[in-house]
Amino acid sequence: MKKTNIQGSNDKRNVNPNWFTSKTWMKVLSEKIKSKDQDIYHVHFEKGSRTKLHAHNGNQVLIATKGKGSLEIFRRYGTSKNNFKIKKTQKITLNEGDIVHIPAKTLHTHGSTDKKKTFSHIAINILPRKNSEYKTVWWESDFKTKATEVI
Amino acid sequence: MKKTNIQGSNDKRNVNPNWFTSKTWMKVLSEKIKSKDQDIYHVHFEKGSRTKLHAHNGNQVLIATKGKGSLEIFRRYGTSKNNFKIKKTQKITLNEGDIVHIPAKTLHTHGSTDKKKTFSHIAINILPRKNSEYKTVWWESDFKTKATEVI
Repeated sequence: MKKTNIQGSNDKRNVNPNWFTSKTWMKVLSEKIKSKDQDIYHVHFEKGSRTKLHAHNGNQVLIATKGKGSLEIFRRYGTSKNNFKIKKTQKITLNEGDIVHIPAKTLHTHGSTDKKKTFSHIAINILPRKNSEYKTVWWESDFKTKATEVI
Repeated sequence: MKKTNIQGSNDKRNVNPNWFTSKTWMKVLSEKIKSKDQDIYHVHFEKGSRTKLHAHNGNQVLIATKGKGSLEIFRRYGTSKNNFKIKKTQKITLNEGDIVHIPAKTLHTHGSTDKKKTFSHIAINILPRKNSEYKTVWWESDFKTKATEVI
């Protein structure tokens, strides 16, 4: 049986920069500890960095481990791939130790909200079915302008 | 969508004292955040308190959040309910941020190892199948003498 630690910059993995508004990196914890039921990551958001808008095909649990961040929930109006509107329906601040559950197919963003503070969380991505694949659909959005097309 | 926090003594739930060697209490996080895929707890072990020997029917992930503790793995010899031997096969120290995966049916104990330090962890109990029940079998053991019968 193997353990690993959520902290520290060893075993860093770069993320797809198109999916984040600024610098972000992560550690894949579930690979290290051989947990196959779900993907478990530790994600480090540099100051002001957030995920772009996205939704998963399975449920997700976030556990804030350091800094100050938020989870924002959106609703999409319109089904066209690059002609739709979005509206923020909820904003949840995330401080150390906060834990939240995001249902599958919920449009959301999470990360640092304070430009002076980094933010880290554990993300537990729960497979929709045994041996299925956890999928994420990303929207192009820098949150300075607005969400546009699905990428 | 609701959040809760792993820290603090609000929403304390008492545990079955027969299953621990000393004072322990917990918070049920998954109920608060409406996560139904798995049971998520935060467990606080007072100084020197450990779980008695047990095994689950599903996988489990532990994330150490505070203090100093350990996970110990045992192997059982003999199938009789109250006539068997056990042997420790592994001891993993758990410090803040350490994360470990315990496969289903693995005989183990976890909790504080240092009599001067409390220990807390998040426990994620992963259902063996969708909508199934997560079950735990407990052994009578105070770890001063030895494990005896299944309770």
